[in-house]
Amino acid sequence: MKVAVLLSGGLDSSTALHWAHLHHEVVCALAFDYGSNHAQRELACAQWQAESLGIPYHQIDIRAISEHLSSALLSGAESIPTGDYAEENMKLTVVPFRNGIFLAIAAGIAESKDAHGLVIAAHAGDHSIYPDCRESFMQAMSTAISEGTYAQLEILRPFINENKTEIASLAAKLGVNIERTYSCYCGREQHCGTCSTCSERKQALSAAGISDPTTYEQ
Amino acid sequence: MKVAVLLSGGLDSSTALHWAHLHHEVVCALAFDYGSNHAQRELACAQWQAESLGIPYHQIDIRAISEHLSSALLSGAESIPTGDYAEENMKLTVVPFRNGIFLAIAAGIAESKDAHGLVIAAHAGDHSIYPDCRESFMQAMSTAISEGTYAQLEILRPFINENKTEIASLAAKLGVNIERTYSCYCGREQHCGTCSTCSERKQALSAAGISDPTTYEQ
Repeated sequence: MKVAVLLSGGLDSSTALHWAHLHHEVVCALAFDYGSNHAQRELACAQWQAESLGIPYHQIDIRAISEHLSSALLSGAESIPTGDYAEENMKLTVVPFRNGIFLAIAAGIAESKDAHGLVIAAHAGDHSIYPDCRESFMQAMSTAISEGTYAQLEILRPFINENKTEIASLAAKLGVNIERTYSCYCGREQHCGTCSTCSERKQALSAAGISDPTTYEQ
Repeated sequence: MKVAVLLSGGLDSSTALHWAHLHHEVVCALAFDYGSNHAQRELACAQWQAESLGIPYHQIDIRAISEHLSSALLSGAESIPTGDYAEENMKLTVVPFRNGIFLAIAAGIAESKDAHGLVIAAHAGDHSIYPDCRESFMQAMSTAISEGTYAQLEILRPFINENKTEIASLAAKLGVNIERTYSCYCGREQHCGTCSTCSERKQALSAAGISDPTTYEQ
């Protein structure tokens, strides 16, 4: 199936890109600059990952939308909570309906490029905090996109029932260059090593028994 | 209910804005500049309509998305087909998943502004051509937005079973300044009077028995 892949440049979506490249025909990788603190570091990784597979990379500037959204992710690194990913304070980092916005834009672009599927790396570990990562949302959004396009596009979510450790294992198996993925919410040159997404990344790679090539500040 | 209204500056959405103002608390009107041929004339009307009711108006520049979408609406007035709105050639004017993109962005913004509803003016006359105007799409998208937001936002579509003539009648009843709405796909100073949306506008106002204040080129 011809698919477009949503790519952030993190470990999960970079693995999803490799998965899609193996199982489908990837017409493009779509990355969104929504003005997050960590956009530039993350998007550089996204571009590298797409180009390493010879997949057309499109980076779409939607910062004009973000001006109207409220989230700690959009308001400077000092706003980022530290600690475990699952904790209540992670709600501060929610960008309202982010996946819905990404998927809707991707659907319009995918239809323009004659694709029939969208691939997104939402996984089980995200579900408790982010409503737009849950399978109930993905099912409804897939139906909406199917109903709203001539091609009856569908959303593929290969990791929806997997945890981050399983994704890390798959990344190693598929030969993803993990050093060229970026997870930190703070957005500095090196991963901070202490924010919630850094903690999650460390734990997943360790649990999967993968040597972590990441340089952390701490 | 606190609602955000999707406003293009055309007759339908301007009427929806007045309807929402009467029945709900409108926290903002959201207009999108997606680079259409007729954007500037239409958006000026949108802003006028919102300000006439004292409703905060936000215009969001999403032209960076449109660069990746294929549609006659985005490629110069000479591409616009003339004739009846219902004809096959109107498919050229489809902007892929436009309503999906608008609704998703609006959902994120509405959630940021503590609204619980989105109002869209999709109506029965649009259904045959545009898949993302049909009730089956609206139902699925409303579910997706409800599942994907903390506020469980819903989509209100007051005109989904009405035709354009009924909307024109309501516009007159609600005191909408019809002269300050813009329908023409060509985007010149005056309505062309011959493109499909001009034809539809003329017919609806005539069938509703409303004196048409529009100046047409032809």
